[in-house]
Order: sequence, then C-alpha cells, then structure tokens
Amino acid sequence: SHVSLFFFPPYFSSASTGARKNASSEGPSPTMSQAMKKTIGHRGINPTGETTYKKTTSSALKGAIQLGITHTVGSLTQKPERDVLLQDFEVVDSIFFPNEGSNLTPAHHYGDFKFKTYAPIAFRYFREMFGIRPDDYMYSLCNERLIELSNSGASGSIFYLSSDDEYIIKTVQYKEAEFLQKLLPGYFMNLNQNKRTLLPKFYGLYCVQAGGKNIRIVVMNNLLPSAVRMHVKFDLKGSTYKRRASAKEREKAVPTFKDLDFMQDMADGLMLDNDMYTAVCKTIQRDCLLLQSFKIMDYSILLGIHNLDQACRERDSEAAADPRKPQGQKSLYSTAIEAIQAETASMVTPVPLTGGIPARNSKGERLLVYIGIIDILQSYRLAKKLEHSWKALVHDGDTVSVHRPGFYADRFQRFMCNFVFRRVLRKHESCLTEHCARL
Amino acid sequence: SHVSLFFFPPYFSSASTGARKNASSEGPSPTMSQAMKKTIGHRGINPTGETTYKKTTSSALKGAIQLGITHTVGSLTQKPERDVLLQDFEVVDSIFFPNEGSNLTPAHHYGDFKFKTYAPIAFRYFREMFGIRPDDYMYSLCNERLIELSNSGASGSIFYLSSDDEYIIKTVQYKEAEFLQKLLPGYFMNLNQNKRTLLPKFYGLYCVQAGGKNIRIVVMNNLLPSAVRMHVKFDLKGSTYKRRASAKEREKAVPTFKDLDFMQDMADGLMLDNDMYTAVCKTIQRDCLLLQSFKIMDYSILLGIHNLDQACRERDSEAAADPRKPQGQKSLYSTAIEAIQAETASMVTPVPLTGGIPARNSKGERLLVYIGIIDILQSYRLAKKLEHSWKALVHDGDTVSVHRPGFYADRFQRFMCNFVFRRVLRKHESCLTEHCARL
Repeated sequence: SHVSLFFFPPYFSSASTGARKNASSEGPSPTMSQAMKKTIGHRGINPTGETTYKKTTSSALKGAIQLGITHTVGSLTQKPERDVLLQDFEVVDSIFFPNEGSNLTPAHHYGDFKFKTYAPIAFRYFREMFGIRPDDYMYSLCNERLIELSNSGASGSIFYLSSDDEYIIKTVQYKEAEFLQKLLPGYFMNLNQNKRTLLPKFYGLYCVQAGGKNIRIVVMNNLLPSAVRMHVKFDLKGSTYKRRASAKEREKAVPTFKDLDFMQDMADGLMLDNDMYTAVCKTIQRDCLLLQSFKIMDYSILLGIHNLDQACRERDSEAAADPRKPQGQKSLYSTAIEAIQAETASMVTPVPLTGGIPARNSKGERLLVYIGIIDILQSYRLAKKLEHSWKALVHDGDTVSVHRPGFYADRFQRFMCNFVFRRVLRKHESCLTEHCARL
Repeated sequence: SHVSLFFFPPYFSSASTGARKNASSEGPSPTMSQAMKKTIGHRGINPTGETTYKKTTSSALKGAIQLGITHTVGSLTQKPERDVLLQDFEVVDSIFFPNEGSNLTPAHHYGDFKFKTYAPIAFRYFREMFGIRPDDYMYSLCNERLIELSNSGASGSIFYLSSDDEYIIKTVQYKEAEFLQKLLPGYFMNLNQNKRTLLPKFYGLYCVQAGGKNIRIVVMNNLLPSAVRMHVKFDLKGSTYKRRASAKEREKAVPTFKDLDFMQDMADGLMLDNDMYTAVCKTIQRDCLLLQSFKIMDYSILLGIHNLDQACRERDSEAAADPRKPQGQKSLYSTAIEAIQAETASMVTPVPLTGGIPARNSKGERLLVYIGIIDILQSYRLAKKLEHSWKALVHDGDTVSVHRPGFYADRFQRFMCNFVFRRVLRKHESCLTEHCARL
C-alpha cells in the first residue's frame, strides 16, 4: 500500500481542485528562487513550487483533512447529544482511510492514511458554545476549497483559511497538540466563566497519519475578517526586546508591526470609551490569569486596525468598480467586538458591518479594532529556545525564573491596559461608532 | 494547650446557646438507655447523653464549625472575585484557632483547633451558581443555632440542619472527603451543562482538626423542606436485594421506605405530565452518566411525597391552632421542582407555596414530589463491604464486576423512569398543580 500522500483532485469536492491556483493568488507569494530556500521547521517547498509539510504536499494534506473532518463530524452527529465528561478530554478517535475505500470511508486518490480526532465530544461542545452548527462547520471546511496563506511567518506551520473566511487551519507540533489536550479542562472552565474571552477559539484538533509521519492540525477562528481592510496590524507582547518588525516584514503590503513600532507610531494608544475599556481590560486580565495558571508565556495580542476615516477617503479616491467582498463571518463571538459585547450588551452600540471594537486614534479618527490573543500553545517550545527567552526576560527586568509566567502576564496586561488601550472619560464630539455616510 | 474540644456556649452567638436543648426537642430522640448502646462508626453518645463524634461533643463541634465558616467565608469576601482555575480544586486553606485568640481569629472557649477549607474558590463559585449569597450562607450557618438531627441513620454520621431549614451539615469520612475533592472538576462540568441536576448541592467541604483527630464535614442543600409535611418517604436504588424498610424504621412517625415497599405500596408509580416526565427522566439520565463516569454506585433517590388531598383532609380534621411554620428555603434550585424548572420554565405551572414536582398517585390524588440523588460519596466504602455489594449485584443479575457502575446506573434509571415515574399523556380531569382551596 502507499505510504505517502500524493496529490490528486480531492475525491468529493470539485470546488477544491482550484485550491492551489487560488491560494497563490491570495497574497504576495514567494518567487521560485526564494521559495527553494524557504524550509522552516517541517514546512518546505517541493521542486514544483508547492508547499510541503513533512514531505506531504499541501494539496494532499488538504484532501486528507477534508476527508477526515467530513467523516468525524458526520459520525458525531449520529451519536446522541450528551454532556461532556472529564475523561472526554483524553479520548482520541481514529479512523483508517484506505485508498480503495472501506465500509466506513470512501475511496480516494491519496495514499492510505489514518485520521485522528482528539477529544471529539469536548470539541463538539466547544463548537456549540461558539455557536457553530455541525453542518456549517463541515461545509465550510470540507465542501469549499481551503486557501493556503502565503504569509505563514517564521513558525514553520502551514496555515489554511476556509473559503468563507471563518476558519483557520494550522499545523502544530507534537508538543503543541499535547499541550492543547492538557489545556482542555481549563479551557472548558474558562469558556464557561469568561464568555468574553479573547483566547483562540479552538474548534478541533486532528492528526493526519501517513507514511509514518504525523501531521497535527488545529482548527481555529479567523480573527481578522478579509472583508475588512486592515490599515495596520500589530503583534504585541508587552516586551521591548527585539520587538520591532524586520525590514523584510516592512516590505509587505500590510506588515505586522510589533511593540516598539506601536510605541513609536501610536504613542497615544487607542482611545476606548469608558465601558468598553473596562470590558476589554477585565477580559484581558481574566485570560492572562488562565494563561499564567498553565505557565504559558510568549503569547501575543494580534491587533488589526481598520481606520474608518481613512477608508472613507480611500473610497473617495478609488474606482467604484472594486466589487465589495461578501460578509463571511457567521460564528458567535468570532471577533473581538462580539466577544466583548456578549456580556455587556447594554454597554456598546451595535456596530454595523463588521464587529471591531470602536476606538479613536490620537488624531480623532474613528477606528475599528480587531483583537485576539494568539500563540498560546508554544509554551513547551521554550525548552528549545530557553536562552533567548531568558535573555529577553532579563533584559526586561525579570530575574526570578519561577515567577516568569506571572511576570509575563503582568507586563502583558500593563502594556495593553496602560499603553495600548486608553480610557476616554469625556465623550468625544461625535460618537465613536459613527460611520462615514458611504459605509 | 488544650488538645480536645470542650463544650462552652459559642463565643459569638447568643442564639446558639440554646442549640442542644432545641435540637433534642426536634424529633424523637433516643432514651438514655438506648443511647448508650448507639455507637455507630465514629458517632457515639457520652454519659451526659450528648452525641459525640470521634470523642468530640456535638456542641463543641458545632461551635468550631461556626467559628471556622465565619472566618473562611469572611476572608473570602475580602479577596477579589476571580475565575475558578483547575488548580483551585486542590487548594486547602488552613487557619489555626488558638483558645486565646490571634490576630486573625477571636478568642473562644474550646480547645485549640485548626479549621481547614477545601477548594475555597471552587465552592465559592458553586455557591454562586446555586444563588447563595456569602452573607446569607454565613448568617444561616453561623449566627443561628444548628439543629442536630436525631434520625441520623446507620451511616455513623452526625447531621445538622440550619435553623432556616436551608442547609444540611454532615460529617464525612476521610475517603468521602478525598473522593469529593477528586469529583470537583467533573462536578463543575456537570453544573455548567446540566443545570437541572438532581445531584447533591455541595456548598462547602471543611475539616475541624483538634486533639489529633480530623472531623470532616460537608455542607449541602436540604432536600425535604420542614415546612412541607412528607406523608411518605422513600430511599430508592432500583435494587430489590434487602431493599425493605426494617421493622425499626417502620416504627418512626415518617419512616423512610425502600424499593420493595414502593413496589408493593405504589405499584402504579407516580404519574407525571408528559413534559415533566421527560424533564425528570432526562435529568436522571444525565446525572447517572456523570456518576457512572466516576464509577460511583450505591447512590439513592431520596423521594418525599406530600399528598395535597390528604393534607386538605388533615387540615379539616386538625385543630386550626397549629402555627404555620415559616417558609425557610431561599436558594435557587434547592428543591427538585426548581431544578427541573430551571430550563423548562414554560413546561410547568409555577407551584405556589413549595417547590415539589406535581404528580398524581393511582387514586388520582394530587401530590408534590421532592427528589434528589443522595449518597454519592460512598463509592470508596465499597471496599469495606464488598461482599454485600457483590451479593446484591449477583442477586440482581450482574455478573461482570467491571461493568458494575454502568449496570447500577442502567438499573437505577430503568427503575426510576419505568416504574417510579410514569408518563401521563392525556390530561387528567383537573390540573396536576391545582391546590385545595385552603392551601
């Protein structure tokens, strides 16, 4: 039998056959000469220019993911609803997909593979908590093409975006997957207590096993909706050590800037009205407490800013021919504003169109801010790059290593709530949520 | 320093000084000659006729409990609210109460003792989930007398009832306390998913440590409100082996009957209307799944029946001079009907006065049924009395010991939902919840 995955058009979805072509049209993709060098971690590029992960082509991986999720979600809907039990967090379901098909699985054009679903009942519960219906989940991930993101960054992971802009699929390392499993009981508790949480929304954890290799993937929410143009993006940790976007990052159309850039370019921070400020900071505080309790560090806030006034000006100058992108996002609490509004419905005026947090910059321009806490599974990576972390923390004033998670959390919160977000007590001359007429 | 607890009037509460006298007036208390023989487990009776537990007098134990809970709840209210974390389930707070008092504790008239609070943050959350305010909890338990229940049964535990009829305090064995601690994460999960649960409501777990002895107590809800006369009570397990109330039990004013008695005296079961039947049985099923997942067996349903028609007849024949008892119960979901109604508000007409589940017996008499699942912490006791359990299970047809918790749960559910509770599809001539005019 075949031991590795080969690329063939996916078995069941004609929509998926165009995936690669579309993926590469999605953003600035590396030229071939650059690409050949770009092997980071398990991610590489093969001679035909296609991304690989542990030698498996991206298209084969996508096909296996789509077959696997279709099966696992489908078989779950046949089981009766029941409460999640403590031991459900440790369950791993496994199903074999032989090339020629079986009683339970369709025939397909890849090599034989196994598909593992971690904690299926627990993740079903999480999806339900996030307001995601099984049919929608399956359809978005499996019946539409997955778009490979070209700006995958330095982590060595592959990222896919679902066509409806709702889901991110990301490859994770063994240690990260293992850590997420350990995190699940605490994650359950957080979801039930801290409904406005800014932590990643984990919808599923899976493993494609083929040719003796394990490729683990996690399905998460997409924080920054494509339909909203982000005028500027930041990855913020509350640290200053090596926290400036590289020259290479700055060449991108919309670079992801870092702490030092924020301190320099947005020295006055982002003004939030009083209630929103309180809600955001309380949520960050609660999330940090959970992260600290799991000794997690090195997480970031991903922050995308849509400048409404700038968008108005751009619209004036741009051709009206540009077709408006459809509004994809559907899940509950998928973006920051919805999360924040979940328990403070009375606090903020509903924002039409999008779901960002209404804010102002120092010029008084109206902004929509999209935030989420990311990179919370890399705690175990620290072992590998301990020296860097140690240097970074010493540089920032931390000396007692056992206190590091608490130190990290405190500094993170302080930066977010004293510098990045600012409380506006008096009302601005016009409402923060007001839009330009054309929007 | 003193190593054992001596009885003195409680330090802070004049209301508590009458506790012993009032406790013994509460029900049929054993005569002295009977009492001297009645040493069961750690519970005994001293020469003055007072109950003891591990040689500590009941009054001294009550005093220490009241001092301890006052302190632990008081110090919790000073800590800021925060989410429960996974590790909170394992925390044990300890505070020393020297006879002469300290910075943190008042002087008192007992010997020195230590008071331990298990999982304080987790139980604070549980109490909040059950709608119990810290002040009310502290006041009911600590500023009013605790009434010792004389019908403590064969468990060897002491039971106290708070004056407002709201709380039961019960001594538990080391293994039971240890097991409850292990159960807490699963208990948390159940509370968040299965809001109508019939499991005991655990409000707190504590330990009084004095004279080298540990007395562990659990604070729970009181299932059967004193204000409602129970015409008949049952302890049901779904088993038939030795499940008949003893001759001695039958001598009591309101005996607690068992399965065989129910099958004989109430062969037609209790009629519930369709929606209520569905809600009750679904809840029992969910609770059983949790119990099974923790390999818990030997639990019972405590079932108290108030017969409204009989009460009307009694009222007619009784002197009107009998003062009506005050309505004590205040906590959310404290009784079965409230639990069931929590998520099925539209299903059932609110019941005035009480909170029982409206039902009918085979004569068509209107009943209010009070139910709860009890004795869920004795799983570990099985080791001691394995032979009995084994016999009981073999007698009932179970042969494979590893399947016992599942077998127990299935049989329990079957008995409750096929025999004890019956679905009435057509409407009775009059509404199940209708009361007699005088009520």
